[in-house]
Amino acid sequence: MRPPEELLEFFRREKKFFLAAHINPDGDAIGSSLALALALESIGKEAEVYDKDPVPDFYMFLPTSEKVMASLPDSKTKIPNLILLDCGELDRAGIKEINCGTSVVIDHHETEKGFGDIKWIKPEAAATGIMVFYLIKELGVKITPDIATNLYTAIAIDTGTFRYSNTAPEVLRIAAELIESGADPSLIAENIYETWTENRLRLLLKVLNTIEIQNDVAITIVTLDMFRETGAVVSDTENFPGFTRMLKNVNVAALFREVEKDYFKVSLRSKGRKLNVAKIAEKFGGGGHRNAAGYRVRADFNIAKDVLLKAIKEA
Amino acid sequence: MRPPEELLEFFRREKKFFLAAHINPDGDAIGSSLALALALESIGKEAEVYDKDPVPDFYMFLPTSEKVMASLPDSKTKIPNLILLDCGELDRAGIKEINCGTSVVIDHHETEKGFGDIKWIKPEAAATGIMVFYLIKELGVKITPDIATNLYTAIAIDTGTFRYSNTAPEVLRIAAELIESGADPSLIAENIYETWTENRLRLLLKVLNTIEIQNDVAITIVTLDMFRETGAVVSDTENFPGFTRMLKNVNVAALFREVEKDYFKVSLRSKGRKLNVAKIAEKFGGGGHRNAAGYRVRADFNIAKDVLLKAIKEA
Repeated sequence: MRPPEELLEFFRREKKFFLAAHINPDGDAIGSSLALALALESIGKEAEVYDKDPVPDFYMFLPTSEKVMASLPDSKTKIPNLILLDCGELDRAGIKEINCGTSVVIDHHETEKGFGDIKWIKPEAAATGIMVFYLIKELGVKITPDIATNLYTAIAIDTGTFRYSNTAPEVLRIAAELIESGADPSLIAENIYETWTENRLRLLLKVLNTIEIQNDVAITIVTLDMFRETGAVVSDTENFPGFTRMLKNVNVAALFREVEKDYFKVSLRSKGRKLNVAKIAEKFGGGGHRNAAGYRVRADFNIAKDVLLKAIKEA
Repeated sequence: MRPPEELLEFFRREKKFFLAAHINPDGDAIGSSLALALALESIGKEAEVYDKDPVPDFYMFLPTSEKVMASLPDSKTKIPNLILLDCGELDRAGIKEINCGTSVVIDHHETEKGFGDIKWIKPEAAATGIMVFYLIKELGVKITPDIATNLYTAIAIDTGTFRYSNTAPEVLRIAAELIESGADPSLIAENIYETWTENRLRLLLKVLNTIEIQNDVAITIVTLDMFRETGAVVSDTENFPGFTRMLKNVNVAALFREVEKDYFKVSLRSKGRKLNVAKIAEKFGGGGHRNAAGYRVRADFNIAKDVLLKAIKEA
């Protein structure tokens, strides 16, 4: 996978970059952004990393994660070059207004949004981290342990640590190279998967107790009350649908997260090649990947649930 | 990693092999055995695969798993060549008596037992599957999809699907090659991790609700009543301590499984390099590995728990 020449020339020519990833950032969003920033700095450029939402606690181990800024420059300040990572439009990055020169999109999500003066969108890439790996190699960057840890985490998160169907031979070979460059696979796995708070575990138990299975779809709900009762936070629900996906007869796991009364964020996870949940999410104005997607819906829970079940049945 | 010349010559010269792995077989035991048998058959040899215990349900997807025999030839029948895989002695394979010519050990466990006319024991190998991979390549075997699936599963199980500290670059590169030879990483992961029954999930919820944390030790209990209430079975508790090990402040997870009144099987799991739980288990007459061990105890739960906590504190 070779980045477009236009993109390489852009990075070689320009000096200052403002990197932004999507809201509610995951390991691919943060890891890719930090790795690219570190890489650009190592070749004498300036790079800032922005995310509207704070870095979740369990990604704080990522080298230089403390540099992720939560505030945008005011709209009078002109940003020379905006790089959107792991998303394809300003809205996904939670940016309403920005005064920028050139805009660039580096993303592996399927839903192309048309934004960006230079676009490099590769849905076949398992993670944006894979794309950043190829990009910085082409730019002649030496992969330091800090870059390797960020990229390895990005790739690990988006492949379920090499359990999803996007685990191509290329993904494992890049991961092997990143270990050689200093990434520690067990340290990363412990930080990603084994740094739960007790509140988070208590929330998981409450959520799993709501399980309802219809055909091969497992539905769970997390309510605002549950957050209050357990003291857990929104980012704690990351990967909750993975726990109901463990069931043998379940092919799709859906988690309804109550944002406010009758307004839900729905996360969908599917197994294997059976159902492309990105297509389902798109029907409701959302998006994502084949096996992991999401959307928002304003409706009573039971209605929203039935509408989803119907859409899956008809898919 | 190159197999000893003596071992290669042995496999080139001989025609008939009897393969046996350890009792309570895991994915490395079964996958390595089936892969080696398939490889030997592909170059015109005869190979039988034995395991004293049945192949667990979630390993039934392994190609040719139906060929694993549960009965030994009677002691009058002479077996020309016995190959012990993923264990180093007859006792671990549940074999009391066998009439065999040459005996061979191919194993990556640390405890060398002295058994075997030809021994290839490599504790630095992440899985016996890695050793079988190198062996059959040296024998000139073409890796078919069936062989690849068995070897990939063997390696996946013993590295926590590339999450443990034994995930060396070499492991990932071999896995990449096995995918190219026909192993399907997501199908394998789904079969290993995502074939839970609803009973099992219900049991997990009950068990997690009993969690008690003392210092960095998380203790859970599974009672006979819980099995009755959920319809789950003993093998369903496999990896249950892994769920409490997810907690940030927990370094040791202990699951007390009630075998009968005041008699428990205790499973211990630890994180990283902090505590060798095999040493703790040995104090109570059990054993295992650094991060996964177990023992049995006849006592009231609260007493057994306090004795364990004391032993961990003193370690």
